[in-house]
Amino acid sequence: MTPTLQLAHDLIRRRSVTPDDAGCQDLMIQRLEAIGFQVERLRFEEVDNFWATRGTDGPLLAFAGHTDVVPTGPEGQWQHPPFEPVIENGMLYGRGAADMKGSLASMVVACEQFVAEHPDHQGRIGFLITSDEEGPSVNGTVKVVEWLEARQEKIDWCIVGEPSSTDRVGDVIKNGRRGSLGGILRVKGVQGHVAYPHLADNPIHKAAPALAELAAQEWDQGNEFFPATSFQISNINGGTGATNVIPGDVEVVFNFRFSTEVTETQLRERTETILNKHQLDYELDWKLSGQPFLTAEGELVDAVVKAVEQHTGQKPILSTAGGTSDGRFIAPTGAQVVELGPRNDTIHKVDECVKAEDLDTLTALYQSTLKRLLIR
Amino acid sequence: MTPTLQLAHDLIRRRSVTPDDAGCQDLMIQRLEAIGFQVERLRFEEVDNFWATRGTDGPLLAFAGHTDVVPTGPEGQWQHPPFEPVIENGMLYGRGAADMKGSLASMVVACEQFVAEHPDHQGRIGFLITSDEEGPSVNGTVKVVEWLEARQEKIDWCIVGEPSSTDRVGDVIKNGRRGSLGGILRVKGVQGHVAYPHLADNPIHKAAPALAELAAQEWDQGNEFFPATSFQISNINGGTGATNVIPGDVEVVFNFRFSTEVTETQLRERTETILNKHQLDYELDWKLSGQPFLTAEGELVDAVVKAVEQHTGQKPILSTAGGTSDGRFIAPTGAQVVELGPRNDTIHKVDECVKAEDLDTLTALYQSTLKRLLIR
Ligand SMILES: [Zn+2]
Ligand SMILES: [Zn+2]
Repeated sequence: MTPTLQLAHDLIRRRSVTPDDAGCQDLMIQRLEAIGFQVERLRFEEVDNFWATRGTDGPLLAFAGHTDVVPTGPEGQWQHPPFEPVIENGMLYGRGAADMKGSLASMVVACEQFVAEHPDHQGRIGFLITSDEEGPSVNGTVKVVEWLEARQEKIDWCIVGEPSSTDRVGDVIKNGRRGSLGGILRVKGVQGHVAYPHLADNPIHKAAPALAELAAQEWDQGNEFFPATSFQISNINGGTGATNVIPGDVEVVFNFRFSTEVTETQLRERTETILNKHQLDYELDWKLSGQPFLTAEGELVDAVVKAVEQHTGQKPILSTAGGTSDGRFIAPTGAQVVELGPRNDTIHKVDECVKAEDLDTLTALYQSTLKRLLIR
Repeated sequence: MTPTLQLAHDLIRRRSVTPDDAGCQDLMIQRLEAIGFQVERLRFEEVDNFWATRGTDGPLLAFAGHTDVVPTGPEGQWQHPPFEPVIENGMLYGRGAADMKGSLASMVVACEQFVAEHPDHQGRIGFLITSDEEGPSVNGTVKVVEWLEARQEKIDWCIVGEPSSTDRVGDVIKNGRRGSLGGILRVKGVQGHVAYPHLADNPIHKAAPALAELAAQEWDQGNEFFPATSFQISNINGGTGATNVIPGDVEVVFNFRFSTEVTETQLRERTETILNKHQLDYELDWKLSGQPFLTAEGELVDAVVKAVEQHTGQKPILSTAGGTSDGRFIAPTGAQVVELGPRNDTIHKVDECVKAEDLDTLTALYQSTLKRLLIR
């Protein structure tokens, strides 16, 4: 078994369901310290995190990732027990195999091999590792980034190990993510009996045309890197359960995934303009989960793209599709950020797996990127 | 204390929360048998009902009502314990005082006094009493009416004791009720992640414009006796609770209160035409709670109106407003039906009460109606 696959096994064996790290970070720290990394353990509340660097000056290339995994669901539904990693027909099975213990193993082994060849590399290598990516994301990367900023520590290039690939490892590199803006809207009316509608004011009736208009709205047309901004209502709830009572209010939960063509402020204003036009009496709580970010070009994208071309013979696609990742917390510091990891078709599912040889390819891609950026 | 108030006390003291009759009917039956009524006890499932008649031929004037009451809610919130009737400042307090044990007492005492004066009255007097009006209304009046029809027993005139009055006893007589037609609509879409809206199909977005159109629709303009037909959404629920998941469907519960200007069939067809126009994929379960009914004119309305004019000096208003009542089950048999009872401002509330002297007035109104219809 290759060093990457061996380390992936050792990580998967640890039951690190968010926020429990279950010793994964100890294992990574031990390996990184052995090759000259300085490590700072950063525990915030119940969350283990660490920051590690090697080198003394020059540009900083950081690997970012998470040791935590999502819950398994009923373990009986797994053909391969989620915390007993096994390779079968060339696939490595286990919770976190793809998201993202496989990537963590590739990052560590890539650094080991790179440092062995280039003990006096230029610049610095960093690791920003959390055990709170799949959970509330409150005491993880966002806190580490605050801590780094307080120390005036600045990441120049960041590779996030999220599983970015679709059909072949490296076929898709995420060079940005859409922003995510949530809203909880409570439209108020006057409760009453359906037999006396003139004494009530039905908030569902009042909300319906406004929601129809919001759903039909074109928020932007996207751009070269981003699809058009999308508005989606995820939840709507109104009513007492009784069939003869007009409820006093209705709650609507919605979410924008937005491009760099609109701002958070514009979306809030345009939403409220529509609600006001329909003369709704409402409360609206906004929650920004992440600004959109984009690393359109630069040394990092160049290096990663060339690494993929060299090792796979195919040019990767740059994409900003998909959900949010911890890159949203790192990009605002001014870092160039890309996400490169294995195929994501089984993540968060039962029998999560990854092609075993893809992890070795990923190790080579990370190592090749290190060389392109830190060896001149 | 007057006989009516004494009987009202005795009824209120019995904890007859639906469907438990708690001995109320026994008490009424005992009183009615004492003045020559023939009684049939009719228990359907867990519900006590009875049918009583006095007289052998000629037109049948029936009193209809219910011995059951709605739950008290937390009894500690009552200033006057709900099942310990008391008269204070001229008001009789207790659960059912207004809805409708007060009316039941007035009916029985009105008959006692009428029979004492006119033991050989013309026509027949009936009582149709249930303990399932406030509940599912499945094993109550509807079953008794079926039983009467099977025996070819036909009610000509029916006075329902529901509390019809607004400011003074007898100021409003209900001479009909709107129909009630309910629908449970399930609009189907395709579940997905808000980050991948192109892979999902948001049922809330699809439903919103159709619901807006249904809410804005003019179904009819009502007529002399009925307000315009009203459509109200009472409940809407969609969403998994997660803010990042587009739900697979949304459920909408709605209700029509409809006049005699439209039919149930027309409402169903017009609703489905709107849903189809919006190209919704849906399931829709209809439930008719009651056809509209109307006793526009006739001997019964004449007699009741004249009785009120004579005893109160004021002409009552004929109204079809308000919720449904068991009149909806009796009217389709061809009976003339009116509802006459005390003020309804405290029904179903804590400290339900009725003006004590209003119950004596109500006894006089019922007795006067008996005379007008059964003494020629
Ligand atoms: Zn992940
Ligand atoms: Zn009632």
